Amino acid sequence: MLIVMKKEVSSEQIEQLLSHFKKQRIETHLMKTDNRVVIEFNNDKGNVDRKQLLVFAGVEKVIDLKEPFKLVNQKPAEEDTVIEVNNISIGGEHPVIIAGPCSVESEKQIIETAWVVKERGAHILRGGAFKPRTSPYSFQGLREKGLQYLYKAKQETGLPIITEVVDTEDVPYVEEHVDILQIGSRNMQNYELLKAVGLSNKPVLLKRSMSAKLTEFLLSAEYIMSKGNEEVILCERGIRTFADHSRNTLDLSIVPAIKQVTHLPIIVDPSHGTGRSDLVEPMSMAALAAGAHGLMIEVHPNPQKSFSDANQALNPQQFSHLIRKAQHFIEWRKAYANPSPAY
Amino acid sequence: MLIVMKKEVSSEQIEQLLSHFKKQRIETHLMKTDNRVVIEFNNDKGNVDRKQLLVFAGVEKVIDLKEPFKLVNQKPAEEDTVIEVNNISIGGEHPVIIAGPCSVESEKQIIETAWVVKERGAHILRGGAFKPRTSPYSFQGLREKGLQYLYKAKQETGLPIITEVVDTEDVPYVEEHVDILQIGSRNMQNYELLKAVGLSNKPVLLKRSMSAKLTEFLLSAEYIMSKGNEEVILCERGIRTFADHSRNTLDLSIVPAIKQVTHLPIIVDPSHGTGRSDLVEPMSMAALAAGAHGLMIEVHPNPQKSFSDANQALNPQQFSHLIRKAQHFIEWRKAYANPSPAY
Amino acid sequence: MLIVMKKEVSSEQIEQLLSHFKKQRIETHLMKTDNRVVIEFNNDKGNVDRKQLLVFAGVEKVIDLKEPFKLVNQKPAEEDTVIEVNNISIGGEHPVIIAGPCSVESEKQIIETAWVVKERGAHILRGGAFKPRTSPYSFQGLREKGLQYLYKAKQETGLPIITEVVDTEDVPYVEEHVDILQIGSRNMQNYELLKAVGLSNKPVLLKRSMSAKLTEFLLSAEYIMSKGNEEVILCERGIRTFADHSRNTLDLSIVPAIKQVTHLPIIVDPSHGTGRSDLVEPMSMAALAAGAHGLMIEVHPNPQKSFSDANQALNPQQFSHLIRKAQHFIEWRKAYANPSPAY
Amino acid sequence: MLIVMKKEVSSEQIEQLLSHFKKQRIETHLMKTDNRVVIEFNNDKGNVDRKQLLVFAGVEKVIDLKEPFKLVNQKPAEEDTVIEVNNISIGGEHPVIIAGPCSVESEKQIIETAWVVKERGAHILRGGAFKPRTSPYSFQGLREKGLQYLYKAKQETGLPIITEVVDTEDVPYVEEHVDILQIGSRNMQNYELLKAVGLSNKPVLLKRSMSAKLTEFLLSAEYIMSKGNEEVILCERGIRTFADHSRNTLDLSIVPAIKQVTHLPIIVDPSHGTGRSDLVEPMSMAALAAGAHGLMIEVHPNPQKSFSDANQALNPQQFSHLIRKAQHFIEWRKAYANPSPAY
Repeated sequence: MLIVMKKEVSSEQIEQLLSHFKKQRIETHLMKTDNRVVIEFNNDKGNVDRKQLLVFAGVEKVIDLKEPFKLVNQKPAEEDTVIEVNNISIGGEHPVIIAGPCSVESEKQIIETAWVVKERGAHILRGGAFKPRTSPYSFQGLREKGLQYLYKAKQETGLPIITEVVDTEDVPYVEEHVDILQIGSRNMQNYELLKAVGLSNKPVLLKRSMSAKLTEFLLSAEYIMSKGNEEVILCERGIRTFADHSRNTLDLSIVPAIKQVTHLPIIVDPSHGTGRSDLVEPMSMAALAAGAHGLMIEVHPNPQKSFSDANQALNPQQFSHLIRKAQHFIEWRKAYANPSPAY
Repeated sequence: MLIVMKKEVSSEQIEQLLSHFKKQRIETHLMKTDNRVVIEFNNDKGNVDRKQLLVFAGVEKVIDLKEPFKLVNQKPAEEDTVIEVNNISIGGEHPVIIAGPCSVESEKQIIETAWVVKERGAHILRGGAFKPRTSPYSFQGLREKGLQYLYKAKQETGLPIITEVVDTEDVPYVEEHVDILQIGSRNMQNYELLKAVGLSNKPVLLKRSMSAKLTEFLLSAEYIMSKGNEEVILCERGIRTFADHSRNTLDLSIVPAIKQVTHLPIIVDPSHGTGRSDLVEPMSMAALAAGAHGLMIEVHPNPQKSFSDANQALNPQQFSHLIRKAQHFIEWRKAYANPSPAY
Repeated sequence: MLIVMKKEVSSEQIEQLLSHFKKQRIETHLMKTDNRVVIEFNNDKGNVDRKQLLVFAGVEKVIDLKEPFKLVNQKPAEEDTVIEVNNISIGGEHPVIIAGPCSVESEKQIIETAWVVKERGAHILRGGAFKPRTSPYSFQGLREKGLQYLYKAKQETGLPIITEVVDTEDVPYVEEHVDILQIGSRNMQNYELLKAVGLSNKPVLLKRSMSAKLTEFLLSAEYIMSKGNEEVILCERGIRTFADHSRNTLDLSIVPAIKQVTHLPIIVDPSHGTGRSDLVEPMSMAALAAGAHGLMIEVHPNPQKSFSDANQALNPQQFSHLIRKAQHFIEWRKAYANPSPAY
Repeated sequence: MLIVMKKEVSSEQIEQLLSHFKKQRIETHLMKTDNRVVIEFNNDKGNVDRKQLLVFAGVEKVIDLKEPFKLVNQKPAEEDTVIEVNNISIGGEHPVIIAGPCSVESEKQIIETAWVVKERGAHILRGGAFKPRTSPYSFQGLREKGLQYLYKAKQETGLPIITEVVDTEDVPYVEEHVDILQIGSRNMQNYELLKAVGLSNKPVLLKRSMSAKLTEFLLSAEYIMSKGNEEVILCERGIRTFADHSRNTLDLSIVPAIKQVTHLPIIVDPSHGTGRSDLVEPMSMAALAAGAHGLMIEVHPNPQKSFSDANQALNPQQFSHLIRKAQHFIEWRKAYANPSPAY
């Protein structure tokens, strides 16, 4: 096991940890690498609980070398992964805002929405062309035509675009048209599809399934990375529980928890995560406060008339309000993280 | 809404139901069709709760015409669907036993297991050739080679075979070699795959996903049926809950609950449903007692040496014990359902 | 850790287990005590997983001496606990049937129901006098008066009675009038109440809470036993999950799983466990098949008019049907467990 | 049903809502009361979904007059409840910070901790004297002695104190010594205890049970209020789910959701809600961003030596860090809510 200490760790904090191991008669080995102090020890017997080490001051990450991951957690002492899409950084200090309708419904609708979200501050346009719907009789998306409308919206507004891909056969066609490929929560363990997008040279946004544990979520990312595509963006979008005030239960604690295990960026989708447009703004702010690298928000020019998920989409005014609040919050977050001398 | 009364309904029971509606000032319409009494009423306002009607004596099924189904529940007054596979009936009075290893590991292993389960009374051989594993670094199955070994086991023992298919592209090749196609729980909402097997002329066993509600489970069956394949076998295999004494929580109440909505057969997989070989026998008996049309049991010649899921597979002796008990129980169930004059 | 082997264990099975430990270089110690073979080994390092040992043929129980229990699992090699209530045995070979209304509503209602359930074969009468209702504005029970009506029903029919107790202050008064004290699922972790009934000389039926893990359930039983009352009957009554076809998800796998840890009897309440009267009969049969020591069934002379839980109570005819089927099943279960030479 | 519009509602927004009802041929009645516009309509048929109305711009709350509440939601157009405890306001604009150890362990420990949390900015001191522990063999608290130590800490530091009460019999003694009575999550449906604290003149902090839906949570508050005590503070502390990266799943979406139904304040306990000290700070920030009226944080002078819940308590340095960040955030939140002309 490797314990990676924080950059600003003090020698007392290191001493405290070493004496903790000494008391338990566990041998440790101290390394300095990539500007970090790393403590190694043998945990073959599994006596030491990872979570208990995180309690010590000065500890940044604990890397279990026997964990089932090879790639998602490979960079012990380096910076986190930052994915660049048309000059937009995902994973860095500034959160990314992805916005747009659940489904591409028409050329007019998607271009209108693209302008709406761009003017209000979104960085990336979302829109579903291939829709995985629970019922075979629900609207299934405009498919190739939807993709072309999305592409047109990109050309007009300059916004990079993201859309869901649902079948291995569609990957080549979709990746040609979009900037980010999305894997929906229902397909998080569709391993053939994960391998197919793992061969793509476009970044992949991977949504957590409604019943995935943290490790399973990361192993699905590992499937993509094991095929060569290292640009994976994780996305929390709510899990299935008994609670019935929201459609799903948004599990925000996975944001700080997963950041201790992986270098990949993680964003939050409060629209699907709650299923209620009135909860989207407060949960967006909560996601940013928990450390999310971005938000994915459903916006529709006229939610009451949308083809799908009417109850969760924001209208343009609601989106404006959210984004103004988010921007102020983000500035505050940065100011707090990097205080000026006078702060 | 349609209320289908039991065959042996009494006129008092019908009267009781009609007067219940009268009190609530709901108009009803009585029909006799296909040897059954069917009561129709208008529930546009949604005032009447389906579940409350099931409480009345003499009621067999309540069919909500506004339910999102068209095919899974289409036969209001006919017999349930029975699927024939090589002279084996699935969905009828006699439960079917599907058994075999989690993975096909070698020609020797699968043929040996085929004889083991056949001699002890299994009707169908299962074995995974394409394995959807949570980690990309776990054994992924022998793929085409596994399928050929399975086919050889069929030729030697005469047992029909079932295997999981995980990608739309594989469907043509797999359906050529097997008698039943399996959709695993992780793919229950992989709609492209559902549509692909919906075009097959082989029956499909559809496993419930770990987070599927009853309606979602049936809508996935509806996807398959809407493409023309009406031979769908449902399979309960445990859901995700907080309980930690078993790997999943086997939700047996879905067996009688789903039989009131659909004519499709439903079987139970207690091996994946509990993840513990010591719970497989009692939960198999419980599944049959709850009305399941069959069982799917993991059996391995030597579970300690199996490539996957060692803790849940039965060894040959344990399987013998289970099957003897099940056979006695099934005889009892039949005798009770169709008592001889002297009973 | 102690491994208790089955009575009919073979020497090969013992040998197989010992050689398993040898390979792992774990020292074992073999004991013969109370007609059983018990294998002891040191698991201070926690390397050995309890569940994996249960997979070996011939193993009956694995007792972790470091488990947090002292009493619920204290009898490694003896028979299971059988609790005697007025000549009724709970925990033995013959399942006990507890039946009656959710609430005592009037003297007439409870006496009528007592005769209904007695004539059809129930052994014990249930009826709530102190009702813990989710809303303060729902019917809260007849309290002392309800207890007196219950007592009268006992005097008339001879059926022993069970009722819920909800406050420490009520324990002395309630235990004077009833044969078994019930702790409801909402109070499973009301430790003051558990201690209070632990001082009683009447048996206690302890219902699992909607969110209790197996260990927590047993630790609540341990609270009662630690005060001196060793007559605890466990009761599974459904857990909270996302599934919405039933009010709760009846977790039948806890029946065989808990029997491997404890000597206490466990019964099942399919009425609260499903919340639907049409699922009560199939889930009752499933509970018995899973090995439950009894059933707790809600019966009401006229469910449509009951004060509470109308949708889950059986009417007298439905109860007759269930009990006839259960009795046949129980005979079959016994015959199978103790086959006559000709069987 | 009553729709309460926001203070700053525009006439277009009202018009939009009225025309929505007109289209559906639902008659409405417009009222102006207490400086608010309230729209009333008849929803006897239950056709209108509460959640869909919340989607309209300008809507603040939708009050269903048929909801099972009478008191928790009684003030349609007034301000939210603010509870005053020794000059500390709970429920107002400024979040309250409650901090202290899980258990009172000694006079020295609680007084030391009281100074630690007071100096760093906490408003109220928490500390358990009567501990409801899952096992009867775990430390059960110092009881009366613990209460006296807590009281001493209050006298020395001036911090008001809160402690859990677990038995109806203890209420009079406990309420004499503390400023707020706490009902723990295991007792959320211990109705006798709720009624007992409902008769107290001290405010009550009510923790959500691990399996409570929103309505059940509020009905437990209603139990307390129905006895005359209107000072109830709600507290989210995590629910039971399958997720295993945190001990419970902190359900932050209940914060904005419950604020639309009730006027009572709601705070969040991220210590129990995650069970991991390293997640406490990010989830505290998230809770405040979601709109919580305060935080309840476990702090121990030396977490590694605490008698209970060592993994979730913060040490003094960690608490300092959290509180500095929280204070900056709160200032930002206020500035944003009440912008100065230059903002």
